[in-house]
Amino acid sequence: MTKHPIAMTFPPMTSFEGSQKIYVPGSVHPDVRVPMRAVALSDNKMPVLRLYDVTGPYTDAAVTTDVGKGLPRIRTSWIMGRGDVEASGRKVLAADGCHAKFAVIQEPLRARKGCVPTQMAYARRGMVTPEMEFVAIREGLAPDFVRREVAEGRAIIPANINHPEAEPMAIGRNFLTKINANIGNSALSSGIREELEKMLWSVRWGTDTVMDLSTGKDIHVTREWIIRNSPVPVGTVPIYQALEKVGGKVGDLCWEAYRDTLIEQCEQGVDYFTVHAGVLQAFLPLAKQRLTGIVSRGGAILAKWMQIHGQENFLYTHFEEICEILKLYDVAFSLGDGLRPGSTHDANDAAQFAELKVLGALTTQAWAHDVQVMIEGPGHVPLNKIKENMDLQLEHCHGAPFYTLGPLVIDMGAGFDHVTSAIGAALIGSLGTAMLCYVTPKEHLALPDREDVKEGIIVHKIAAHAADLAKGHPMAIVLNDAMSKARYEFRWEDQYRLTLDPERARRFREASLDNRQDPSARCCTMCGPDFCAMKITQEI
Amino acid sequence: MTKHPIAMTFPPMTSFEGSQKIYVPGSVHPDVRVPMRAVALSDNKMPVLRLYDVTGPYTDAAVTTDVGKGLPRIRTSWIMGRGDVEASGRKVLAADGCHAKFAVIQEPLRARKGCVPTQMAYARRGMVTPEMEFVAIREGLAPDFVRREVAEGRAIIPANINHPEAEPMAIGRNFLTKINANIGNSALSSGIREELEKMLWSVRWGTDTVMDLSTGKDIHVTREWIIRNSPVPVGTVPIYQALEKVGGKVGDLCWEAYRDTLIEQCEQGVDYFTVHAGVLQAFLPLAKQRLTGIVSRGGAILAKWMQIHGQENFLYTHFEEICEILKLYDVAFSLGDGLRPGSTHDANDAAQFAELKVLGALTTQAWAHDVQVMIEGPGHVPLNKIKENMDLQLEHCHGAPFYTLGPLVIDMGAGFDHVTSAIGAALIGSLGTAMLCYVTPKEHLALPDREDVKEGIIVHKIAAHAADLAKGHPMAIVLNDAMSKARYEFRWEDQYRLTLDPERARRFREASLDNRQDPSARCCTMCGPDFCAMKITQEI
Repeated sequence: MTKHPIAMTFPPMTSFEGSQKIYVPGSVHPDVRVPMRAVALSDNKMPVLRLYDVTGPYTDAAVTTDVGKGLPRIRTSWIMGRGDVEASGRKVLAADGCHAKFAVIQEPLRARKGCVPTQMAYARRGMVTPEMEFVAIREGLAPDFVRREVAEGRAIIPANINHPEAEPMAIGRNFLTKINANIGNSALSSGIREELEKMLWSVRWGTDTVMDLSTGKDIHVTREWIIRNSPVPVGTVPIYQALEKVGGKVGDLCWEAYRDTLIEQCEQGVDYFTVHAGVLQAFLPLAKQRLTGIVSRGGAILAKWMQIHGQENFLYTHFEEICEILKLYDVAFSLGDGLRPGSTHDANDAAQFAELKVLGALTTQAWAHDVQVMIEGPGHVPLNKIKENMDLQLEHCHGAPFYTLGPLVIDMGAGFDHVTSAIGAALIGSLGTAMLCYVTPKEHLALPDREDVKEGIIVHKIAAHAADLAKGHPMAIVLNDAMSKARYEFRWEDQYRLTLDPERARRFREASLDNRQDPSARCCTMCGPDFCAMKITQEI
Repeated sequence: MTKHPIAMTFPPMTSFEGSQKIYVPGSVHPDVRVPMRAVALSDNKMPVLRLYDVTGPYTDAAVTTDVGKGLPRIRTSWIMGRGDVEASGRKVLAADGCHAKFAVIQEPLRARKGCVPTQMAYARRGMVTPEMEFVAIREGLAPDFVRREVAEGRAIIPANINHPEAEPMAIGRNFLTKINANIGNSALSSGIREELEKMLWSVRWGTDTVMDLSTGKDIHVTREWIIRNSPVPVGTVPIYQALEKVGGKVGDLCWEAYRDTLIEQCEQGVDYFTVHAGVLQAFLPLAKQRLTGIVSRGGAILAKWMQIHGQENFLYTHFEEICEILKLYDVAFSLGDGLRPGSTHDANDAAQFAELKVLGALTTQAWAHDVQVMIEGPGHVPLNKIKENMDLQLEHCHGAPFYTLGPLVIDMGAGFDHVTSAIGAALIGSLGTAMLCYVTPKEHLALPDREDVKEGIIVHKIAAHAADLAKGHPMAIVLNDAMSKARYEFRWEDQYRLTLDPERARRFREASLDNRQDPSARCCTMCGPDFCAMKITQEI
């Protein structure tokens, strides 16, 4: 069989310098194998440091991957072994937009009648699933602690039964802070190959989840390529595809088109859905007083729909039915903040917080169905108003994980909004936000390309690490101290290995040295050999 | 006369898009002319926005500058008019390292006997100097407010009487947050031309002060080129040059060599000195327990000196004499934190805070001489320990301005430490730090080049703006809201003009458009024409 043309364009993903993929086996579930990145160091006291690794089989030299076939389905035996799912029988429809089939078709699963195959349902029944043990080993926690966090709604494990390729991970404030990378095309830009490449590239640089926000052509097929090849959970905003299905006319949106889209995406394997069910009719007048109105695409679409029909948001009125669908597949809610502020002027206003309260009520409703929930947050917020966001989210949303976009702490940083976002993200992360959605340098200007995606991921990984360090997470402290010790001991190779981008760190230093200089020298060109403070200190 | 070879290499500095240099005259002092950048906008309600401008005559199309001659001396008449200074009579010595004289020699001034020509002395006597009015207009404040802040030590106006080329500016927590760019060569890298170019480039991108941290060859001459051409205050760390004068041997350092260096630099026009007078013998055992020891170059040099001689830090024992020198020229202290933490592990430890208390006592001592003071701060500090730094600085240092290096909130960001620094800088700025020292992407790896300097400046200007917005500074709010309004109204040209790097913002957006697309379209490639939330909102 010849390779699919999309599949032929990807070079193998390279591993990081001095790193090796290892697997830590489970003890509750011996078939759990948790991948880690083992970094070799020239330090007698710590010859190897194990780091959290999201890159999946791509960085395992022993595994040959083929994007035309998709990743190995590591969770299938766990999912089938629980005996609570069956083939759904639904076929992909022409209306799904599927006019170029993925090479390997996977038969969709759904819950058997009366069963609820969600991690929350299992956790509440006292089961430590293989997914929970996987997370526990990744995070250095006890399996039952993970179970309790999921049972009580403080953490989610987004793990659709139709995405068995993904490695389980948790989003919650008592876990490592996670980041998300948004990918996806628009009507003006990009194609399947580019978006699949962005997903792989995002994973290479360490994103914990990806959201496919495609609104352009080939939405279904693009997503199929992404999900089948993604070792991390995939999120979407289903209203985008629903709108495409009704020809882009907001007035023609209806519950039936949305419901069909939900089922289609549930059966395809999306792990979490952004659902803007908290944008209510009553809040629209509040948003009209704003400097920048509504800046959430989903929020704006629903506001327009409500205005056209003079009816309440159909995602709100049909929320119970949405829960009934999501629970069949273990798709988690990411309750969208359709009224998030798009400028610091509008931050923390009545519209924003009115919606947040509704999201809290919807959380309770979803939990009654054992559906996992996280809450999306802003947006643009000045530093002095960030804490109030976290405080109110905890107060109104009963401890459900918070997932914020930035927030961007200023509005005039266009071209550098990855940094304006990372500043706010680090602060809100340190206060307890569980996942940080990245922003790239192109935000507000254009669709990001490959390099933008990388920059966005790295600065938000910095924000997440800063948050973890502030919260005193032992894994963050060990990594940070290992780096500082390597720095103080002039172990340059070890320093490169411990940074977020080893190639860049090496290039920065080595390009500055001329041929006569020894790359292992106990100095750099910043201070030269006589003015290095650390060297002088060690002479004392 | 042919141009000096160094002077021939500089292209004219370009102004920002759509901007014009204007001057606002003083009312107390009619010869005060405060430069501003007037940005033309396509907004009927605000056709022009005036922004703070540090670029000096370089961006005034009506002025021809020549780095071989230096900038116009705008302060000379003010300085001479006060009648409290006279020619110092000191000649540049061979020991100063001056083996390639600057083209135009300026005769050094110093205080007449019994006079104290410092802004603090004037302020305490109730005088509103032209420098104070200049600052007041720049910052949109009342002149007497500026005077009181300087009189009470909460702000400094670094303005050496021998640097009449500089435009007055203030550093204090009730003023706009400032940033500093470090330039200067090391023994391994760079020359005069490169460092002069970096200064001009730094000013182009908006730094409020520069520090020349040269430790390599030609320290005196490099500094001369920088000072004569700098429209912003210039700081140094005199112990670096003192060490060069004694052949690089720490044990040979002595008060006399240091004193001569101070006088030389005072007469050359340095506006503020980092003086590590708080690193005391008693604190060295505290630093020995650290993960990364002493990471301040000055701190390490003095620690070694104390160990060699078994004596107290000579900057501490001679502090009274240092004050007597600085007051003759109105050079401000930047009291150095020689024991700042070099890793998050060492943050907020006993060594750091012991030194901070001493800096507080030295502040009182300097103020008794009417010498202006700011206090340097860390360093590497995790987010959760930043506030304690600001709180203790205010407590121990009597309200003197705080000037921090970052702080970097994680240690393992090498290659991206401009961002790890900007995160901490934004937070500590929002809590009241008056000036943020930039960090570039090359930190910990190599001496920064031109592009690194620009990146470092822009991300720290973002941090400073974020801090100002959090503090509710009216100028920050006006700028931010103007940007958001332009964004909501799809005025792309105005958006570019209001960003920190208009060329970059324009390039990012326009490169993404194909030939058929109109650059003024009410959308970008992020969402395309049908999914733009702001456009949809406006249709409602």
